[in-house]
Amino acid sequence: MLELIGSQARAAEPLLRVLDTNTKNRVLRQVASDLCENSETILLENARDVEKGKANGMPAGLVDRLLLTQERIRQMAQGLNQLADLDDPVGEVIQMKKRPNGLLIGQKRVPLGVVGIIYEARPNVTADAFGLCFKTGNAVILKGGSDALASNMAIVSCIRATLEREGVTPDAIQLITDTSRETTTAFMKLSQYVDVLIPRGSAGLIRATKENSTIPVIETGTGNCHIFVDESADLDMAVNIIFNAKTQRVGVCNACESLLVHSRVKEALLPRLAERLAEKQVELRGDEAVCALVPGCVPATEEDWGREYLDYILSIKTVSGIDEAIAHINKYNTKHSEAIITENYTNAQRFLEEVDAAAVYVNASTRFTDGFEFGYGAEIGISTQKLHARGPMGLLALTTTKYIIYGNGQVRP
Amino acid sequence: MLELIGSQARAAEPLLRVLDTNTKNRVLRQVASDLCENSETILLENARDVEKGKANGMPAGLVDRLLLTQERIRQMAQGLNQLADLDDPVGEVIQMKKRPNGLLIGQKRVPLGVVGIIYEARPNVTADAFGLCFKTGNAVILKGGSDALASNMAIVSCIRATLEREGVTPDAIQLITDTSRETTTAFMKLSQYVDVLIPRGSAGLIRATKENSTIPVIETGTGNCHIFVDESADLDMAVNIIFNAKTQRVGVCNACESLLVHSRVKEALLPRLAERLAEKQVELRGDEAVCALVPGCVPATEEDWGREYLDYILSIKTVSGIDEAIAHINKYNTKHSEAIITENYTNAQRFLEEVDAAAVYVNASTRFTDGFEFGYGAEIGISTQKLHARGPMGLLALTTTKYIIYGNGQVRP
Repeated sequence: MLELIGSQARAAEPLLRVLDTNTKNRVLRQVASDLCENSETILLENARDVEKGKANGMPAGLVDRLLLTQERIRQMAQGLNQLADLDDPVGEVIQMKKRPNGLLIGQKRVPLGVVGIIYEARPNVTADAFGLCFKTGNAVILKGGSDALASNMAIVSCIRATLEREGVTPDAIQLITDTSRETTTAFMKLSQYVDVLIPRGSAGLIRATKENSTIPVIETGTGNCHIFVDESADLDMAVNIIFNAKTQRVGVCNACESLLVHSRVKEALLPRLAERLAEKQVELRGDEAVCALVPGCVPATEEDWGREYLDYILSIKTVSGIDEAIAHINKYNTKHSEAIITENYTNAQRFLEEVDAAAVYVNASTRFTDGFEFGYGAEIGISTQKLHARGPMGLLALTTTKYIIYGNGQVRP
Repeated sequence: MLELIGSQARAAEPLLRVLDTNTKNRVLRQVASDLCENSETILLENARDVEKGKANGMPAGLVDRLLLTQERIRQMAQGLNQLADLDDPVGEVIQMKKRPNGLLIGQKRVPLGVVGIIYEARPNVTADAFGLCFKTGNAVILKGGSDALASNMAIVSCIRATLEREGVTPDAIQLITDTSRETTTAFMKLSQYVDVLIPRGSAGLIRATKENSTIPVIETGTGNCHIFVDESADLDMAVNIIFNAKTQRVGVCNACESLLVHSRVKEALLPRLAERLAEKQVELRGDEAVCALVPGCVPATEEDWGREYLDYILSIKTVSGIDEAIAHINKYNTKHSEAIITENYTNAQRFLEEVDAAAVYVNASTRFTDGFEFGYGAEIGISTQKLHARGPMGLLALTTTKYIIYGNGQVRP
């Protein structure tokens, strides 16, 4: 079955590659409208998934992520309409130069081809992933979580029906309905048909994909994000930024998990900060110096420095200065987002240069690492790997380039 | 041992990342000069490898690739000096924009970090790979073929001595001296320490790397390159280009392996072409129509359409026009380099748009797909994958980007 799905995606690829932007946008808007129109059917199928999940003792948080409502379907549709409004990156010639022999060599953005996406029981990802891939001229093969199978089948069937009515190959989107582990692993090895595989979900899913896939993977990752408060920091600004980065939303990869404080400002900063964070009942885990200054602070263990809590917990360490701060961050971070609060020019520049991460900030919250905040109008995920795309990925990450060369008879001497 | 090598490379990485261009260029030129100065030692060690290879019955072609001479060491040194002359891509800010909230968000080119390179018994790759990685601020871990071990050890030891004298960490280059298959496979799984793995060599090596590696791989690949002669082609130009693309150098991935001819020009083209190719004793394998026109043409089998001969052999097929040509190429090609010879504007544009390959040409030889010919001044390889880099890879392919963000207290609402 995977073989069939793969070859159908490959057959769809050349048809999608040449779709003009107007057609793609018209179809995206029609899919959005048809999803809303068919919401009854989709909600009915979703109710079956939810019922089964509850019967199997699915935790409330997961049930909530699985659950669809009229409002959530409307949001899915809105996402597709927003994609229709974005510029189409496909076809842009990003450079073109004339070589001494007269060859005109250009580099043009083209779709990746066939994109595979593996995700968990979040049916909203189904429409979202389709939209991103379709806008960029890619065929997509989806493998969603088994708990959302009925919902995904309803959404995909609705999208395919719209594609057919619009005269576009329905194989622009295909769903793998066999959700067994064996099939998932076999999917990861379908390199003959799939150009890139994107896992969206837990650290476990991402690790399994990385370990098993023979298809190139775009890894989206975890974030053990640090803020370093330098000696010269504006401490009001520091408290504001730390409060925001820690508590504005705790369960996300760009939230701050660990704080480094220059030892010369620990007395001035920590009691004020602890008071502010207490508004949200943030648990503090600190080294000895921190615990001495903050009543109720829990002693941190070595393990805390490497933790992504995704919770109202913050680890705090005092450091002797910028050197120790940079060394600590480069040792324990996950290469996601890191910030320094400082008024010192040289330290700001050194932090930007020497900290190895997808995004490095001076005097701003790490929470801005996000495709929408960066102005991309869409987000596929936040890459913590270094190949192909790093940091928030917009539509560009779903394209590659090809060289186009105009000659007039040139041969190689 | 791998663990130690990996952690030493990681420790070297931050030191190399911040080297300025002047230092890197000075060191590259010094390494070049020291390699020449130490050529006696290197040649002595190389002679041991060559002797052992011959004793083990190594084929003459491989012995030639293994063999070093004073002239070949001089060429290695020249390659390093050329790298010193190239612009350093590291540090370039490729875009920087102010967001509505005042955040200044830029994207800066930085080294990948630690690069792994697996190659066969070609000691010249040792210096070449070091130069490319060092110029781009990366640490490199090399795993060369066992047949070249003594040569590689001599070259690496010379380079490390120069680095030390120049005050640069010698762990910028490390060689894995255990060349067993188990160690090679374990190396492919060292994703904790290695950011990208580049196999350089045979299709078998590349396949094994792709299948076993948990490190992101940059795949360089085979080339089943086509030329399509359209109805409107200038036939003098066509004969020249085909002769060049097939015979200028046969053992390379951008040589032409298969010719498609519009059936309306087969009589006018094929006898002339056959005569020209006979100068180099090129064996022709054609479909029925071709064989009827060209005496001595061997009937082609289905298998021929997918072959990369790397030899004086050319498969030839007649087609009814541009549609059949594009479909055939997209079915059988390896996504490397493809050319159309035509005077028809629409067909030229359709070929550039619809053929899926790293490089597509109008009226020029496929032999130009090359980092030097494209003006990059260096070449790591020619990527036939779509992620990260596609087509000839220059120094840029050994870099990634990081976001640098200048704020003044911004928090996320």
